[in-house]
Amino acid sequence: MCEASVYIEKNGREELLLDSVDVLEPQEGGKIYMKNLAGEQKTVSASIKRIRLVEHKIILEKTEG
Amino acid sequence: MCEASVYIEKNGREELLLDSVDVLEPQEGGKIYMKNLAGEQKTVSASIKRIRLVEHKIILEKTEG
Repeated sequence: MCEASVYIEKNGREELLLDSVDVLEPQEGGKIYMKNLAGEQKTVSASIKRIRLVEHKIILEKTEG
Repeated sequence: MCEASVYIEKNGREELLLDSVDVLEPQEGGKIYMKNLAGEQKTVSASIKRIRLVEHKIILEKTEG
């Protein structure tokens, strides 16, 4: 399968938010919605910093608020 | 491999920008940089609309400018 793990960068370290993520969508107000293969959902105040699909990694960075 | 095809949505249709994309990074000024497994690179004025990894699809939408 081609899902990815979503991390958020805090103080230069990557902290795992959700693994096996299939769906990720930026939303109004600087939020990111994500859902994984198990149906778990999260919405965080963040923006996408970089995506590395071969490494199965999506890195977010926190936004204010 | 777990790369994805990147599409841009125009008038409700999805137009292929680059396939086999590994790396995607939002940049300053509302641009998106991407690079595929063959080393091809593109930068477009767009934002990420949605990501569907199981479908190997990243959908962008055009921004002004």
